[in-house]
Amino acid sequence: MKPRLMAPGPTPVAPETLLAMARPAFHHRTPAFRELFHEVNEGLKYLFQTENPVLTFAGSGTGAMEAAVSNLLCQGDQALVVRGGKFGERWGEICEAYGVNAACLDVEWGEAVNPDDIANALDENRDIKSVHTTLCETSTATLTDIKAVGAVVKDTGAVLVVDAISALGGDELRADDWHVDCVIAGSQKGLMLPPGLSFISVSSKAREAVERSTLPKYYFSIERALDSYEKDDTPWTPAVSLVVGLGETLRTIREEGIDNVFARHARLAMATRAGMTGMGLDIFSKSPANIVTAVKMPQGVDGLKVLSSLRDDLELTPAGGQAKLKGKIIRIAHLGYVDDFDVVTAVSALELALLRNGAAVKPGSGVAAVQEAFAGV
Amino acid sequence: MKPRLMAPGPTPVAPETLLAMARPAFHHRTPAFRELFHEVNEGLKYLFQTENPVLTFAGSGTGAMEAAVSNLLCQGDQALVVRGGKFGERWGEICEAYGVNAACLDVEWGEAVNPDDIANALDENRDIKSVHTTLCETSTATLTDIKAVGAVVKDTGAVLVVDAISALGGDELRADDWHVDCVIAGSQKGLMLPPGLSFISVSSKAREAVERSTLPKYYFSIERALDSYEKDDTPWTPAVSLVVGLGETLRTIREEGIDNVFARHARLAMATRAGMTGMGLDIFSKSPANIVTAVKMPQGVDGLKVLSSLRDDLELTPAGGQAKLKGKIIRIAHLGYVDDFDVVTAVSALELALLRNGAAVKPGSGVAAVQEAFAGV
Repeated sequence: MKPRLMAPGPTPVAPETLLAMARPAFHHRTPAFRELFHEVNEGLKYLFQTENPVLTFAGSGTGAMEAAVSNLLCQGDQALVVRGGKFGERWGEICEAYGVNAACLDVEWGEAVNPDDIANALDENRDIKSVHTTLCETSTATLTDIKAVGAVVKDTGAVLVVDAISALGGDELRADDWHVDCVIAGSQKGLMLPPGLSFISVSSKAREAVERSTLPKYYFSIERALDSYEKDDTPWTPAVSLVVGLGETLRTIREEGIDNVFARHARLAMATRAGMTGMGLDIFSKSPANIVTAVKMPQGVDGLKVLSSLRDDLELTPAGGQAKLKGKIIRIAHLGYVDDFDVVTAVSALELALLRNGAAVKPGSGVAAVQEAFAGV
Repeated sequence: MKPRLMAPGPTPVAPETLLAMARPAFHHRTPAFRELFHEVNEGLKYLFQTENPVLTFAGSGTGAMEAAVSNLLCQGDQALVVRGGKFGERWGEICEAYGVNAACLDVEWGEAVNPDDIANALDENRDIKSVHTTLCETSTATLTDIKAVGAVVKDTGAVLVVDAISALGGDELRADDWHVDCVIAGSQKGLMLPPGLSFISVSSKAREAVERSTLPKYYFSIERALDSYEKDDTPWTPAVSLVVGLGETLRTIREEGIDNVFARHARLAMATRAGMTGMGLDIFSKSPANIVTAVKMPQGVDGLKVLSSLRDDLELTPAGGQAKLKGKIIRIAHLGYVDDFDVVTAVSALELALLRNGAAVKPGSGVAAVQEAFAGV
């Protein structure tokens, strides 16, 4: 089989982008780099749907998450962390590492937080300085209603920080319209690049928090990055080849149009879910995201074996379940450089892998449902 | 002209490496990645000349410098920082950001620290927990005698941390033999890759400091990285395409042999210095490194104009002087994927750029001296 990457990051990189990144190395303290970086920064604003600066770090997404804690808060500050999976937990861990008192709003894995619960928590504790959540909680393929959360947080003293690492450029997010102060993203997802870049947008409310913050930071200093940003520059050596690739992929996103990008992911997700339910499976999340679908393994079927069939026999790489979901779900992404026939292939592979592991699935039921879904829209 | 990159980082990347990094994306939580990472980690040990773990971060060199402070020290700790240029100053800034009391051993720019001065400082203050210096202070092209510094620090309670970002894989460094506890490196120098990876080796003495340290850290946590390292893994998403390139370049370093790598850089540096003095110029540093040469501009010649001639007219990118050396020196690197004829070209270009800017240089005097130097060895 041909190798196929259908995990919620890293996602496939278009051959054109791979070859663009293979251009000869050039120096970053040059007009050529600043020109590219200026274009990239404008493209990021479009992707994030913001007029605020979007800072680019060399480093993976967790680094930008840490930046949101170390740059916005002080030791002993109160924060509110929505925790409904592995990435919500990471917010709690980072707060703990910095001596920030994180109150955790625990949500059943696979369910989305109720924005009213955030409103109540903020109402009960007016000292809360920041709210940390995810656009898509990747570990459970669950989408948060960030628009509703933003409406709840905007008139409080807290900044809203959204880990959109896996979902930006797939699930809808409009940073300014939805009042998100910091949106965090990574390169290896909807941005269709290899891993190695992370991003954070900074609203004026977030800037005020930055000025107040006394936690130690250096490499991920938002203040330093903002100073350089004004000059289309970076405080430290940028990951030049990835920034070259970013220029390419942002151009393709602009050409497709952000609303079309959102609509494409919605269509692919709908067809994937149709294919899975068509073969008699249940979708895990009660609030499924459009960038990845988590499907429950049927009773008596070992999810780890299905995963192994997909990976080793069929050479299609999805993601399995993490922590308490290990062996219980399979997560198939439809994110980034992906089209309808990738969904047909993924559902076909899942069907075959289930059949090889003794599941009572009618051959063709999944792909037929996918075809029906695509034919209907 | 063809564009030529001769700055002390980023350095040229071999076309073979560029194309290797253009291979299709693959997932990092797989046996294929772990196998590659295992090979890379063995290659890094060879390059660093250590039996200790060498950790790889997605991020540029400054991030690994920060890791050395935030992971080895506590707030209020005493550190000794050797400051003879821009990168020595960076050590001081990072310590300050973390509330570490850095005593700065100021050295004239262009001179190397006297190891006796480090010995005296450590003797006067037994509370010093760490010594921070550079292998090559890139801003002045000056080499530190790390072997001698290591001999001085090894029997004290302090850990020795060396920023070898620009010089590793060029100037000689033997981490274990020379008793360096943490060697820091970056991908875009002697490792002949684009920027985006940084490295830190961790001795057992450094590990003890890690266990004692209470400063906040998360993304650059050495403890987390060591835990994953044992499984040929990384705590956060690695910069996969750069790691693929790293596999390639470490293979070429092993094939050439580390002693041959050191000898090649020594020969290129010798010929470069011969070319520069051959055209009547003075070498800036009193302890010149083998990876980059800083040359003084002759009286009455504007270094910024020479730099512009090189960059804009001749399309060869060196580095200029930084801070107080702006306009006064030109730095030409001979580092990484570079051979004898790159030195001939660089000296030829410098000669022509000087002539265009009114310097009294005899045409051909530089390149003739380079030829003589190469012919003699």
